[in-house]
Amino acid sequence: MASRSSLMRALRAPASNSGRRVVAVGGGVGGVRRPSSPASSSLNPAGMRCLSTSTRRLVASTLVRQTKLTTQTYPNLKRDPRFATVTDEHVARFREILGDNPSAIVDGVTGSIDEGDLEAFNEDWMHKYKGQTRLVLKPASTGEVSQILRYCNEQRLAVVPQGGNTGLVGGSIPVFDEIVISIARMNEIRSFDDVSGALVIDAGCILEAVDTYLAKQGYIFPLDLGAKGSCHVGGNVSTNAGGLRLLRYGSLHGSVLGIEAVLPDGTIMNDLCTLRKNNTGYDLKQLFIGAEGTIGIITKLAIHCPQRSPAVNVALFGLESYEKAQLAFREAKKQLSEILSAFELMDGKSQQIVSIVKSQDKPLEGDHPFYCLIETSGSNGEHDYAKLEAFLEDVMTREVIADGVVAQDETQIKELWGWREGITECLGHWGGTYKYDVSIPLKEMYLLVEDTKARMEELGLLGDTDDHPVVAVLGYGHMGDSNLHLNIPVRRYDPKVEQALEPFVYEWIQKRNGSISAEHGLGIAKKSFVGYSRDDTMLGLMKQIKNLYDPNGIMNPYKYL
Amino acid sequence: MASRSSLMRALRAPASNSGRRVVAVGGGVGGVRRPSSPASSSLNPAGMRCLSTSTRRLVASTLVRQTKLTTQTYPNLKRDPRFATVTDEHVARFREILGDNPSAIVDGVTGSIDEGDLEAFNEDWMHKYKGQTRLVLKPASTGEVSQILRYCNEQRLAVVPQGGNTGLVGGSIPVFDEIVISIARMNEIRSFDDVSGALVIDAGCILEAVDTYLAKQGYIFPLDLGAKGSCHVGGNVSTNAGGLRLLRYGSLHGSVLGIEAVLPDGTIMNDLCTLRKNNTGYDLKQLFIGAEGTIGIITKLAIHCPQRSPAVNVALFGLESYEKAQLAFREAKKQLSEILSAFELMDGKSQQIVSIVKSQDKPLEGDHPFYCLIETSGSNGEHDYAKLEAFLEDVMTREVIADGVVAQDETQIKELWGWREGITECLGHWGGTYKYDVSIPLKEMYLLVEDTKARMEELGLLGDTDDHPVVAVLGYGHMGDSNLHLNIPVRRYDPKVEQALEPFVYEWIQKRNGSISAEHGLGIAKKSFVGYSRDDTMLGLMKQIKNLYDPNGIMNPYKYL
Repeated sequence: MASRSSLMRALRAPASNSGRRVVAVGGGVGGVRRPSSPASSSLNPAGMRCLSTSTRRLVASTLVRQTKLTTQTYPNLKRDPRFATVTDEHVARFREILGDNPSAIVDGVTGSIDEGDLEAFNEDWMHKYKGQTRLVLKPASTGEVSQILRYCNEQRLAVVPQGGNTGLVGGSIPVFDEIVISIARMNEIRSFDDVSGALVIDAGCILEAVDTYLAKQGYIFPLDLGAKGSCHVGGNVSTNAGGLRLLRYGSLHGSVLGIEAVLPDGTIMNDLCTLRKNNTGYDLKQLFIGAEGTIGIITKLAIHCPQRSPAVNVALFGLESYEKAQLAFREAKKQLSEILSAFELMDGKSQQIVSIVKSQDKPLEGDHPFYCLIETSGSNGEHDYAKLEAFLEDVMTREVIADGVVAQDETQIKELWGWREGITECLGHWGGTYKYDVSIPLKEMYLLVEDTKARMEELGLLGDTDDHPVVAVLGYGHMGDSNLHLNIPVRRYDPKVEQALEPFVYEWIQKRNGSISAEHGLGIAKKSFVGYSRDDTMLGLMKQIKNLYDPNGIMNPYKYL
Repeated sequence: MASRSSLMRALRAPASNSGRRVVAVGGGVGGVRRPSSPASSSLNPAGMRCLSTSTRRLVASTLVRQTKLTTQTYPNLKRDPRFATVTDEHVARFREILGDNPSAIVDGVTGSIDEGDLEAFNEDWMHKYKGQTRLVLKPASTGEVSQILRYCNEQRLAVVPQGGNTGLVGGSIPVFDEIVISIARMNEIRSFDDVSGALVIDAGCILEAVDTYLAKQGYIFPLDLGAKGSCHVGGNVSTNAGGLRLLRYGSLHGSVLGIEAVLPDGTIMNDLCTLRKNNTGYDLKQLFIGAEGTIGIITKLAIHCPQRSPAVNVALFGLESYEKAQLAFREAKKQLSEILSAFELMDGKSQQIVSIVKSQDKPLEGDHPFYCLIETSGSNGEHDYAKLEAFLEDVMTREVIADGVVAQDETQIKELWGWREGITECLGHWGGTYKYDVSIPLKEMYLLVEDTKARMEELGLLGDTDDHPVVAVLGYGHMGDSNLHLNIPVRRYDPKVEQALEPFVYEWIQKRNGSISAEHGLGIAKKSFVGYSRDDTMLGLMKQIKNLYDPNGIMNPYKYL
């Protein structure tokens, strides 16, 4: 058994930070704020440190890149001739519904506007998807959403509901000229019951704002994710976001208590229950959780919020192998049990890249093949620290982990989380990233990264020089949920890379009964591949639901199924 | 602040139990096992102590009672003429599907059988509902269920899926001659992943058997309820059971990972995912959670099971008022936070009745208007006990609670739980109970009991003598979930009592935006009242779903919506 002193050496405070601070990329604890001007800022995010020479060169090579139209990326997509084209008359009707407020409409149909005003709605923050809408509507109430949808349905005008536009699969970006319906103006906190924890909010509330509000009441939103500074809660629910707290607080299917949604025909579905138990008929709201705006628009939601834990501890370890990471997870579940609130896995490559891009030393000395970040949240700091210490002593003594640090204060907690939450932004740095968000039974989870890397090497696509499109193949994710983010940062999007990746990745996952979309959803990116995770019967049943609610197919077309 | 010694006096061990043991009514920790012979055993459950004279007289007065046919209780119900009557030919086809196994069929159509063999399937354990089926089918596989349903759908034969038949709203009992499909023979544990906690089981597994299996692996089933010794997990999911652990582990909508179900046309819906995250299309399985067998039969399920907590503490308090009970709940949530696993409320009347029926002294001296039972579950007994002690010291000192005991060992834990879990069985003792399982915002929750009691008194229905139908009006339930069980034990079911209760209770709940069915479901009991909790739009949308999946209406007819 390791002596107390050897343990303490291992669990030293994070490597000296004199003069260094964690760069909050995009603001907040790794909060991936949506850049206000997408075309440039993710290439040089605010606060980014001076880059190394080689990195700077790579950035330069992509600065001129323009996002391709989605219709160019997916040439097989044809505009559905059932849909009408927006006319002056349509716009007049929308103005009637929305009133004279100039902030309620971005009209590139009848007005002459700055094209940049449409750009933020036509393009995603990763520059992978670009639509061609000429009209953005921003209703301020459920009634306005209802009137808009009823009219669109009558007129066969296709629409795309849009929240914070932080998605990764193109779900909130139009493909052709679909009208964007943004719920950004519907952003009030409606009520909070500080005994039951039931919160009622508009769908356009920003996640971080809601969580900040709850913090003041001693409560916490049961969902957290990197994009919290921009994403809307309505979008979170529409995409059934998973994120960092699922391990502790479960999925939105369990925590959402009620939903108000507008159906394509304008019907307002009032299922805005605030009770934890309500067995009075089919739980229809569940269909809207993860429907990606294809059967209606969520306008309000009620959600059960847990007590906020006053004591939070975060530790980061280095590990020799994926097997040891699995062992550490099992032990953490067992020994930390009710206070374990996150168990995140990052491979060595992902941490190297964060270190390079942020120009910052890693918290642990040397390189480890794997890193795990664990967080505990509880009501008694002393108890939690004692549990954590006992756990660490155990896994150190048994050489499950090779090295580790425990954050000593709030600043260090944010620093350590930065190494996990900063990955997405740092990867985008070279120009682009192929992202796969998948669930795989834990035992084989990381093997997907190794097999994909081997394939890229075999095909000569991976290398350190500009003539190799692929910068790296790496993996990280929510180990607590068997949820891997396979990421392939590239210098440019390249059909050869795509052909090497797909259907390879999907077939690999299918063989292991995994899911091709753990938490990011289908959008346009995975629409064609859903058959790898769902059989024909299931797909047929899902299409029945789509046809039932949206017989004219106006809701978010060309996507999902 | 109370001195340590005064606190310890308050938290003495439960009142002396020399020579006494908790009567495990029906077996297990208050496990309400379905009596093997329903007609007699709930009037004199096994192990019931010698009753006081007055109680014995009341029992005697009801011994001759026979359960009325559901069609007599609900004379407006007419057999749907669309449905065929079971013929010899139908039975022959079923025998073909099920093979020669005599345990696969109870055939009162072509065979001559002991009528008692059908009785257990035609009647509920509370003797409130009685159907007239002549045929019970017990398939052994999903394939057999599929063949049966396809044939029934073609032949327009109505069916009632039946699990452990422990429901409280008549959902699993036929009304006319519907065929009962029992899944009792499908009861295998299919797989368990001891890293992720994903369990795959047949729908006919008994809840307690599954939990016992999990206990050996260090895991726990995320649902617990009094009827665990008899109820089937498939029935639990079909009725979206809530129970005792919801406060800690959330609802089945969050913990069920996958479902295999057979649709009325025989289609097998394979959504048996074992992953915590899977965003690949509409989450159709959610529709089957709480659908009460009206759109299909659940045959298998995958569920996420949490680690079992090695340390469990249970305490019981007496309180002066409902206001103080609310205060105690708030403090328990705050101070016990992540280790709080149950917070149950029982009023003084419910405890008096348990004491009388079990002929046993209450754990606390004297009478208190309210009692709360709290349970903590955690990974470290010392930490948990310290938290509980600090909490108790706080609420005692501030006179939030008037008196309390903490269980010192497993036996005492069971004893204290017995005072909560034994209520249902003890109430049934006088002959019958009108039961309302409702959700009401916490602040006004108990007021329903007071208002109902006042109404019964006004109408002269409540009294100590035989000419009063109502024995008592009382309430208990899951305070942590705002879930009240309003119970009215009666000497006999009486239309005057029913008229006094309904729609009174439902209107009362509607005014407070409560739910007329928190966890027991709709069945036949609440079918006509669902409009008090759901608006016409919601009901219309629900009927759409029913029509989509079961256009011929053969699944569990006359119930639900």
